[in-house]
This record gives sequence, structure tokens and C-alpha cells, in this order.
Amino acid sequence: MKENSLHSIMNADSIAFLGASNNPFTMGTTQIAHLIRGGFEGKVWPVNPREKTVLGVTAYQRVADLPEVPDLAVLVLPTRIVPEILDECGRKGIKRAVIISGGFKERGEEGGKLEEELKSVAKRHGIRFVGPNCIGVINAQRNLNLTFYPYVNGPGPMGILSQSGTYVTQVLPYLAKRGIRYSRAISLGNEADIDLVDGIEYLSEDPETKAIALYIEGIRRGREFVEITKGASMRKPIVAYYVGGTEAGARSGLSHTGAMGGNDIVHDGTFRQCGIVRAPTIELLYDWAWALATTPIPRGRRVAIVSHSGGPVTSMADACARNDIEVPLLSENTQEKIAPMVPETGSTANPVDMTFNTNPGALTDSIPRAIFESGEVDAILIHGIGGSDLIKTMKTEAPDLVPAYISDIERQMVKMHHGLVELRKEMSCPVVASSFDDHTDAAVSYVMKNDIPVYPSPERAAQAMAALMRYADWRKARGNYPS
Amino acid sequence: MKENSLHSIMNADSIAFLGASNNPFTMGTTQIAHLIRGGFEGKVWPVNPREKTVLGVTAYQRVADLPEVPDLAVLVLPTRIVPEILDECGRKGIKRAVIISGGFKERGEEGGKLEEELKSVAKRHGIRFVGPNCIGVINAQRNLNLTFYPYVNGPGPMGILSQSGTYVTQVLPYLAKRGIRYSRAISLGNEADIDLVDGIEYLSEDPETKAIALYIEGIRRGREFVEITKGASMRKPIVAYYVGGTEAGARSGLSHTGAMGGNDIVHDGTFRQCGIVRAPTIELLYDWAWALATTPIPRGRRVAIVSHSGGPVTSMADACARNDIEVPLLSENTQEKIAPMVPETGSTANPVDMTFNTNPGALTDSIPRAIFESGEVDAILIHGIGGSDLIKTMKTEAPDLVPAYISDIERQMVKMHHGLVELRKEMSCPVVASSFDDHTDAAVSYVMKNDIPVYPSPERAAQAMAALMRYADWRKARGNYPS
Repeated sequence: MKENSLHSIMNADSIAFLGASNNPFTMGTTQIAHLIRGGFEGKVWPVNPREKTVLGVTAYQRVADLPEVPDLAVLVLPTRIVPEILDECGRKGIKRAVIISGGFKERGEEGGKLEEELKSVAKRHGIRFVGPNCIGVINAQRNLNLTFYPYVNGPGPMGILSQSGTYVTQVLPYLAKRGIRYSRAISLGNEADIDLVDGIEYLSEDPETKAIALYIEGIRRGREFVEITKGASMRKPIVAYYVGGTEAGARSGLSHTGAMGGNDIVHDGTFRQCGIVRAPTIELLYDWAWALATTPIPRGRRVAIVSHSGGPVTSMADACARNDIEVPLLSENTQEKIAPMVPETGSTANPVDMTFNTNPGALTDSIPRAIFESGEVDAILIHGIGGSDLIKTMKTEAPDLVPAYISDIERQMVKMHHGLVELRKEMSCPVVASSFDDHTDAAVSYVMKNDIPVYPSPERAAQAMAALMRYADWRKARGNYPS
Repeated sequence: MKENSLHSIMNADSIAFLGASNNPFTMGTTQIAHLIRGGFEGKVWPVNPREKTVLGVTAYQRVADLPEVPDLAVLVLPTRIVPEILDECGRKGIKRAVIISGGFKERGEEGGKLEEELKSVAKRHGIRFVGPNCIGVINAQRNLNLTFYPYVNGPGPMGILSQSGTYVTQVLPYLAKRGIRYSRAISLGNEADIDLVDGIEYLSEDPETKAIALYIEGIRRGREFVEITKGASMRKPIVAYYVGGTEAGARSGLSHTGAMGGNDIVHDGTFRQCGIVRAPTIELLYDWAWALATTPIPRGRRVAIVSHSGGPVTSMADACARNDIEVPLLSENTQEKIAPMVPETGSTANPVDMTFNTNPGALTDSIPRAIFESGEVDAILIHGIGGSDLIKTMKTEAPDLVPAYISDIERQMVKMHHGLVELRKEMSCPVVASSFDDHTDAAVSYVMKNDIPVYPSPERAAQAMAALMRYADWRKARGNYPS
């Protein structure tokens, strides 16, 4: 098998950076700053005809002056000179590039010609490149960040491949606040060389990536897309958000990356055929890819819903019904087992509503464990993770109301959630949670770090569970049930 | 017109509280704490047979001992004694109550009998009450908070009426973090007396409430529901999230509040007939009610999409197409007007993508203004509010990259968004925004405070815009276009 060229781009140890200066107003300067100061341990060589140093790092006047042949060149230059500088890179012996500069195919005929020129220069030198008109790439495990955005998350198991730069940059704080961590983030830009299909192949081979999130405006190599994704889906889940299927979406995408979208229903069928779970919005793309990257695949469609809140369990049950998830009545035997932990005003039937005013620890420990051990369900949906932020607020507002034994709120609330994390680990129990508390809550954050996704609403938890099941069904139908 | 009894409950100046003690473990104690310490300026009289004071406030042994007849009694007592104590309240002359205690109709036959007893006691004394089995009510404008949750938001224009207590308590931090503020929050519980229909009538009359958010598990008085909502919808928008329509949802709701849900399609038709915008999830319920509470109703279905990000504008355009929102091509004249603010690599056609590397102030000022003034669109969708959190992160990570003139980041970023707020105010321009930055960002927070809703994704902004248009269509069809 030919090595996918993204491997060497993502693992570059030395990077020539063209287009950074000491002028803080330029994108190039911002980008090199993240590379130099973001913890990347490889070499970074700024190339700039007018600066001796860039942000304190020795700069070289020309590519030819570089002390060694770098593994990768990054180009953030005015459109017109990009082909010429890429040629210099080629003459130096550089084989990989990320071309951030825009102004090519997405700008119509003239830009298209420049893009052809770029391609022929690359071909002549055997250069494989990402872009042009992209925002860069991130290898989170190596702190290799070529984008203009500060890298704010810790590394994680979700791979992002996007035909929009925004969905690998501006979205980073959004993901960080939801505890969603990624392995690789790749902005494809115009795909003049390395394209969507290459990106999927790369991520499907990358051991750090457990599930792939795709943002798609248009697919260029249809046949290869089907071939690659069908194979990749047998190994790891792919979630796709496709927006080229409507007239307005297609028009917008055309001016964005020069890609032409097409018939929505056709794409829908293609995705289904290839085992790709299609997400209808950007939020659900990340939600579902995160669930698929972290959570064991359920063996069937039966879930137990547990909570201390009647409204959310009803919302969850309703969302399950709308997503073909079964919420079976629990057996009398199992109901008897959990009954001592559920007050009279609650319900043990499934949904299990233990109501708010009782031993809260049972919700995140003995109740889900007893239910999952019964073998009557394949997965657990739970609403009401958290609580440490509430107690902290209470402690400020009415300290005399917080019992004295609650001294170290965060530690104690985290401890209360140990049982759930153990259940998830010991029994490979698929657990998907929701809470109106978020990442600022110590318990929510603890649970999320331990591979239990926590969503901001009961319906989004149910929808993520449905995504897990949709993928499981596809694998099952091919006799390839995930181990 | 008979006065709706919720008016006097929500405006109570003196409240007898039955079931609070100095034991921090009880819900009643937590509830009275929020009332006493949360800024409520009326009188609070704890009634407790065993305590001289409750949280430092003089307590009375019996209801009969109270110095005056309070406007309202709140009961958080063991189920069995609730009818008896309500009778004592009646004998004292109390006419309004909120009964938090559960264990009634939702607990089956025996509980049902107790609930009948409760109703007959109330009827005998002419007491109107909310509950039982509710979580309390909040009048945000008066800091009157009868729930066990700390009140975390400032008062605002959205009224919440819910058949689940969670959606007026646990959800409060969620709403606060999204800048969503409310006027009233009412947990209906079992609706033994005051019910959904009464609540809608009350909120439709309440001058502080500009739009109504309903969480519904089941409708008891169908005919009155239709009558009241049809009339109310002519004055202010109603958004409903109904979860009783599926078998699992109905089963869950039954054990939750004793309400029986019914056929989903029938309810869908009823809502449409009554001008109620139906939301499919709890997040969209609040999203849409917030948009309808803050944003002028668009005069038609034509929007301009503006952003500095290609991906989000394409997502927005796609979501518009799926929600019957028109994204018309702008006239050459208008495109010429905005062209100087959009670089060559961007697009002026609509969606307007000004790309990231240019004068960012135009996005939130001159571009939307020029477009709206053209009269070619009825509303503006904008992605990319914010930015102050990014610059703050940059300033920490690479201070030399942040230009010296950016000294007071938050103030300067807020100023950059003045133009949008002015456009919204001066021209009553319907503006709905999205951003991957959130409430922690000074600019996002400023815009939200000025009645421009900011959602966490482009699709949710488009969906909220669609909700505005759906309501507008209903009013227009009745010749009652909102002024």
C-alpha cells in the first residue's frame, strides 16, 4: 500500500514557514506563533526576505538558504507568488506542503488558471500538498498547529476532516467547552491535490483516531469516496455533515471552495450504503462523532433511561421513540432490585425516575449497574450528571445550608460518579449522558474525561445513542460486529 | 373578565411557608433560603411546630398564629398531612397556595383519592392553588423564587410554563450561560386546580412576558386550550415542546405527573391551528421562545446571510433552504455597495462571505446595514459575533502579537458590535446571530443583552429565524401582522 502523504505532513519534524513576519496583523505571523509557542517540539524555520528573525527565531531569506531540507513547507503568501515559491521549495527538495493562501479556483477563471499552475509545479517536483485556500492542519498529539487559532483542547480520539476552515478553528473553543477532544483536524481547502478521499484514508489508518467527523460541501471523486469509506467504516465509524444538497447550500459552497454540491437524496443514499452516519447539523456532527469515538457500540437497541428528573426522562423516552430506540419495561425481578433506591413517588418501570429528593449516589452507581447486569438492556441513557456547581452556588448563597461534611465539594461530587465510570469500564457498558450542568462542573468534567459523553440536553443524548446504534446496525448487517 | 389567580400568586407580598426548618437536608429549607436571601422584598413567615426561628426568621407554630392573613401559602409537607394543613390555611383566610408536596395522583389510586380530598378542601375555602407535585414558581422581576434552585439569571422577557419541574429549575444554569432571561417560570405539577390553560392565560396577560415557552406532556382541557391559545397567539407568540405523543413518552409522562399524552399528529395539527410554534426539543423550545421574545417579526421570508466564515454561511444557507427561508441574490447595486468591504476571495452575492482576513468591523456594522437598507431582505442572519475571548487568549499566549492599540480588549470588541445593535434598534431589523464563542465573550454577551439572540451554531440561528417566520405567517394569514 502506498503511504498516504498526510502521514508525513502530520508527522513533520522540521517545518519551513513562508509568510510569517514580525507584523502581528498578518495571518502568517499568528500561525507561526502557535507553532513556535504551542509546544511543538520539531524545528521551525521562518523564511522571509526582509527579516533576520521572526518572533525571535532565526529567519532565512530564501528557501534555498535553509540549513536542511525540511519535511514540510507552509505557505501563507500573496496568491500571485505562490506557484513561484512552491517551485523554490521543490528545487530545495521539499516534498510536502500546506498552502494556506486563497485566491485560486474559488475566485473563478483566473484563479483557476493559477491553481492549475500550482498543480503542475507540485507535480514536477513530486510535492504532495494540502490546500490552497485552507486554514491549515492540527496534529493534537504533537502540538503541531498550523492554523491561526490557539490550540485549546487536550488531544483526544476524534478526527476532524473539513471542507471549511472554520470547523477546525473558530469551533475549537466550542469543542473545548464541551469536553470534546480530537486527534487530527484537517482543513482541506480547494483540494487541488490532497482531497477528501485522501483525508478519509489517512484518518482511517491513524491509530490515534477512533472516529471520523467529516464536513462536506461537495464530493469530487465519487467512486473512490464510496470505495474508501466502505472499507474505512468496517474499521472505524464515520459521521458526515453534508450541506451541498440544497440550492442555497450549493451556491454558497461554490464560492467558498469551488466545490459543487449535488442532489441531497443521492448523497443520503451513498452515505447509508457506505456505513456513514449522516448528521443534520454541525453540533450533531461533533456530538455523534464524539459518542462514536468514546463509547462501546451497543449490542442491540434496548436502553434503560435513568434520571432524577421526570421531564428529562420523558423527553428522552420521546426522543428514543422517534429514533427507533426501544425503552423496554424492566422485569419484575429487576424492578424489585432497584425499588429500595427509588422512592414511592418515583418510577422503576423504565424510564426509571428516582425523583430528586433521595440518595443521589444511586443514580450514578447502583441503579444503572443493577439494570445493566440484568441483561435486559444494551445501553444506559442517564440524565442528571453533575451537581457540584449547584452546591458551590449554594455554599456562596447560603453556607449554613450546605452540610458540614460537604467540605471538598468537587472531590465528593466526583466520587459520587465513580460508580458510573467503573460500570462503563468494567462491563464495556455503553453509557450516554446529559446534563444542564456543563464542563465547569467538576463531576461533569470527570465523567467526560472518562469516556462517557455528556450532552446539554436529554434529546441530544438520545440522538447520540441512536447514532451509535445506526453504525452498529451497518456493521452487524455485514457480519462485522465491533468487538 | 375574572382575574387569573396566578396574578395574585406571582405578586404575593406576604408568604406563609410550611415545611421549612433549619435542617439543610430538606427541600423546604432550601426553598425558603432562596426566598429569604434571594432579594425578595415581601414578608416571609415560616410555619413550623418545632422551631422558634427558621434561618433566623421568626417562625410560627401554626397557621392560626400568623400575625396577618398572608397572600400565599407554600406547602412542602409530607403527603398525608397536606389536606389537613391546607384546611388550616383556609380557616385562616388564605386564598392562594403553591403545593410542592408529591405523592398524589401520580402515585395511583390511593394518591388520587388524597388529591380529590385536597381539591375539596380548596374548593370549600375558595383556595386556588398550583400543584401538587410541582417544583414551585418564580417571578424573576420580583426575586420571588419558590423553587429549591438558586435563581441565577437576571429578569427577562420569556415566560416559562412547564409540566416538568426540571425545566424551571435544573435548566436555570443552562439558560443563564446562554444569556436567556425569563419573566416567570411556573411548574404546574399535577394541575389539580390551576392548570396549563390557566397558566397560558396568565402569561398572555402578563406585561413582562413577551413570548411563552410551554413544556407539555399532556393537555387536559382540550377545547379551552384551543380557545385560549388561539386568542393568546394573536397577542404574543407561544412555542410548545410536546412529548406525550409517542408510546414511551406517554408512559413516562403518566408516572411523572399523572397526565396522559395522546396522538402526536393530532397535537401537531392543534398547535398549528392555534398559532403555536412547535419545537422538537427542549433546547429549541428555549431557543425559539427567546428569539420570539426579543426579535421583531420579519415582514417576509427573505434573509441575507453574512459572515466571515465560509463553512458557517454554507451551513446557514443549507439550513435556510430546509426551513423555507429565502436567501435571494442581492441586486448588483447592493453588491456594489458592499463590495469595498469584501475582499476578492470573498463573496457579495448572498450569502455574503467577507472571509476572515479583513476589516472585521464591517461584518457587524456597515455590511448588514447596507443590505437591510436596500429593502431586498426582511431579516439578517449573521455568524461570527464575538472575538474578545480569542484576543484574550492570544494576549496570554503571545502578547507581542496583539497590537498595542488593543489595550482594553473587551471594551473595544464591544464597540465593534455597536453598529449591529443600532441597526437592530433604529430600523427594527430582525437580526439573529450565531457564534462558536459564548456568554464568556464580552461582545457576545453585549449583543445578547441588546436583544439580538446569539446561538451556538449557524443552523440553530437559521432554525430560530424560521420560528419567527412561522409565527409571522400565522399572524399574517389572520390579517393581524405584528406592529
